Amino acid sequence: MDLRTAQPQIPEWRSVIDRAETGEIDEPIYNVDRGDTRPFDAIFVGGGAGGRFGSAYLRARGGRQLTVDRWPFLGGSCPHQACVPHHLFSEAARELDLARWLSGTLWYPDFDDKRASILEIVELFRSGRNAAHAFMNWQSKEQLGMEYILNASATVIDEHTVEVAGERFHAENLVLGTGARTLVPDIAGIGLRGVFDFASLVEELDYEPNRCVIIGGSKVAIEYGSFFQAAGCPTTIVTRSPLMSTASLHHVDDDLRRYVVDGMRTRGMTILEGANPVEVVGNGSVTAVDVRLADGTVERLPTDFVFVGTGERACSEPFVESLGVTTDERGSIVVDARMRTSVPGVYAIGDLIGPPMEMFKARKCGMAAARNIMGEPYEFDFSEYPDFLHSTYEVTWVGLTEAEARERHDHVVVIQMPPPGVQPGDIPLPCAEGSMLYAFTRPELTGFQKCVIDAESRRIVGLHHVGFGAKDAFQYLDHLLRRPGGLPIDEMAEMNELFLNPEHFIQLSRLRAGNLVLSDL
Amino acid sequence: MDLRTAQPQIPEWRSVIDRAETGEIDEPIYNVDRGDTRPFDAIFVGGGAGGRFGSAYLRARGGRQLTVDRWPFLGGSCPHQACVPHHLFSEAARELDLARWLSGTLWYPDFDDKRASILEIVELFRSGRNAAHAFMNWQSKEQLGMEYILNASATVIDEHTVEVAGERFHAENLVLGTGARTLVPDIAGIGLRGVFDFASLVEELDYEPNRCVIIGGSKVAIEYGSFFQAAGCPTTIVTRSPLMSTASLHHVDDDLRRYVVDGMRTRGMTILEGANPVEVVGNGSVTAVDVRLADGTVERLPTDFVFVGTGERACSEPFVESLGVTTDERGSIVVDARMRTSVPGVYAIGDLIGPPMEMFKARKCGMAAARNIMGEPYEFDFSEYPDFLHSTYEVTWVGLTEAEARERHDHVVVIQMPPPGVQPGDIPLPCAEGSMLYAFTRPELTGFQKCVIDAESRRIVGLHHVGFGAKDAFQYLDHLLRRPGGLPIDEMAEMNELFLNPEHFIQLSRLRAGNLVLSDL
Repeated sequence: MDLRTAQPQIPEWRSVIDRAETGEIDEPIYNVDRGDTRPFDAIFVGGGAGGRFGSAYLRARGGRQLTVDRWPFLGGSCPHQACVPHHLFSEAARELDLARWLSGTLWYPDFDDKRASILEIVELFRSGRNAAHAFMNWQSKEQLGMEYILNASATVIDEHTVEVAGERFHAENLVLGTGARTLVPDIAGIGLRGVFDFASLVEELDYEPNRCVIIGGSKVAIEYGSFFQAAGCPTTIVTRSPLMSTASLHHVDDDLRRYVVDGMRTRGMTILEGANPVEVVGNGSVTAVDVRLADGTVERLPTDFVFVGTGERACSEPFVESLGVTTDERGSIVVDARMRTSVPGVYAIGDLIGPPMEMFKARKCGMAAARNIMGEPYEFDFSEYPDFLHSTYEVTWVGLTEAEARERHDHVVVIQMPPPGVQPGDIPLPCAEGSMLYAFTRPELTGFQKCVIDAESRRIVGLHHVGFGAKDAFQYLDHLLRRPGGLPIDEMAEMNELFLNPEHFIQLSRLRAGNLVLSDL
Repeated sequence: MDLRTAQPQIPEWRSVIDRAETGEIDEPIYNVDRGDTRPFDAIFVGGGAGGRFGSAYLRARGGRQLTVDRWPFLGGSCPHQACVPHHLFSEAARELDLARWLSGTLWYPDFDDKRASILEIVELFRSGRNAAHAFMNWQSKEQLGMEYILNASATVIDEHTVEVAGERFHAENLVLGTGARTLVPDIAGIGLRGVFDFASLVEELDYEPNRCVIIGGSKVAIEYGSFFQAAGCPTTIVTRSPLMSTASLHHVDDDLRRYVVDGMRTRGMTILEGANPVEVVGNGSVTAVDVRLADGTVERLPTDFVFVGTGERACSEPFVESLGVTTDERGSIVVDARMRTSVPGVYAIGDLIGPPMEMFKARKCGMAAARNIMGEPYEFDFSEYPDFLHSTYEVTWVGLTEAEARERHDHVVVIQMPPPGVQPGDIPLPCAEGSMLYAFTRPELTGFQKCVIDAESRRIVGLHHVGFGAKDAFQYLDHLLRRPGGLPIDEMAEMNELFLNPEHFIQLSRLRAGNLVLSDL
């Protein structure tokens, strides 16, 4: 179908996407300006986060792009299977956590373990996700002026040619952005019914899980596991490395890690560290997982639901085959700081070039490719960035851990809440939006925060937060820490806090900034 | 009692405060270093937000201070009667709002209008507030090295002398910080039982309100009214000026105001604008409020609960009497940018010098006074600041409204969600922590946001947000907007967003930053 001259509004887009998903529309959806005779500056293979933002940027710079996606919508896996359901499930986990701790008090009824249905919440997501897709199709066409073909696979013929539904399109450059998928571990029985990853969970779950075993200790394992447990489904995480270890995440402060992981255990989760799955057991459907524990013994964990959270691997195979692009040992396409692959004129972006598989990186990769294609030399360094995950908390961090700071600086000062030696139950802080009810009922659950300072330069070098409401701020804190000159505690102390604020960094900095020689707080 | 040489831990402090409140301890609580023969650089009269932060700063600068408060704790009205209960009640309102809209779906039981007890939530606050007080007494003594006398009124004798429990203390300077109290309107019957303000509500409420009439349209009126309504108590706001009008708040964007006020009405609140209370009716206890409506007619509103939200007035009278400090027409003490009053050596800070009666201002006033007393000329300009309030939403804003920007700049561009012309129900954004459940059930409730840009300089000049999770970020956005050079959209587009982020400012900026000539989004 050709929608170029139509101006479908959001509800019409939603209907198109709905029908494409049921197969009622099985042809490509074209939004290509056939009257425009200019060549394409770039074809974006994959219209996910990176492809869409890169396309918008290239178009804004005056270039012409074509974006192709196999799904009937732009935006990729984030709103379809990844970030958006993760956030819905994490919000559900947070609300269920509150309902459980406050069970039978205030207006909260007695908490019924059986009440929260994972299936129902998954179905809620599934039934609503096309709203975001419809918006992005509309925005990309009507507001951003992009050209695209959806609901059609792109086959790369050579570095200037892409075939879509039998038609060949040519461009000066290609931008590859087809993402990653779960790296499924090679374990007997992993293909049984009842084994899911984040993608198949939202696509295929059709029963209510009674118990869960998670294989792997990635962010996804922590996030989805916390949701399953909060919903009343007893969950066991089987992980080789300790959760949130430096093997999988950078700059995780020990105290932050401890607060988060202890909090998961407090909520009933079983975490088996140093453990390896041996076999997924079942006959058609999963019935158990055999696990070799840290002490070498093998234990059988009965379960009707296995979730794979071992991390992801780039979908690079087709491009290795068609273009011969260089990949690294993990299969990620190798690019330079301008997103250029080993093949001239071919760029790669997003999850396809490896970790961190985060939204900011995908989008900025797209932007970086677009700028370079349009003749502006532009480098993107994503070696440092703010990070987050959810347990039943929002957990955010940026910059150095206390231990890292002590390795690099002679005089490190820490401002933290609760202060060392103070019992968490004695001090209901940090708190604000999201932890006030805990503050007055279970102060030990309100969270933890730490600000790490190089006392000599007076610069803040790391910020760490477990609680609620601070995630948005870390975007700007990252920026402030990175600026030339960084963020001195004295500048922090001059800011205008909105009180109560979820993180107390400004006011706590002010309480110390008067000191010529800084000390802990 | 003298605690100077004791090192009471937080639980012991809590016990001391508890006993002081019941009257079991009716003597002053001394933490004064009698062995230190240095004179005091300043006596802080009032140990609230400004007094405590000023004292800490002065002490950190090497000075010696004495802080006196009539309450048995430092920290003032914020944790005792103001910001902290406000945030607890606003969080309750948010959770109740969710419980109501999701009633009977997912794990939410049918919502019972009678279930949420205002009295119970007030009692929850009352029973727990001393935890924060105890922490601040501990922190101020053990970590910040302050000297103070609590549970004792200070009488100012002259500009160098304060009398406490019959003993006179002398200092080079005085810093006055005794705050403000509700400006009770002069209406017949306002003294009846059942009429409360934010302070007496938490001190005295001893029954469950069935209906509420709020007199006044201040922030407090919106915040507490939204809580009462969410708890199932039908609430009417009687206000002369429109809610959130520029008469009471600065920089409120029209679209933001509309979303918030419409949202309050959607939730069942009655808002009578252009209305004036004539009389509070009752016999001992309130039974109704007579109100002159905008059309001139008088209507009787039956109620058993009246809440006064008409704003506050500085508690300046004792200092006018003892020192002759100059006040303005509203009774606020007049100070210069260094917090100096008309009397040499006497400083005034916080709510005592008038609006904005916000925490950042109180604390930074204290810091400003301390710096000047310690010989550092330091000016504090609080004419511009980020602001917020709660309805059932978090509402935050900084910088110019769209209308203000259009008055000042020729080419103003707006990025907003939902975009103009798009129905809120069609696009479940902005969303992240706090609005995901709405996004998938009632997308029109997820919020509203707007970024206002001067297209010529490409600088962002205003940011406005209704939703959840963005308040903390506005502290840093305020700082970024204020820096020399401000915050260009191009710099915003380079930041690293943590996706999903509650406000979409970074990514939406990026979608436009590629344009040489900026346009709306």
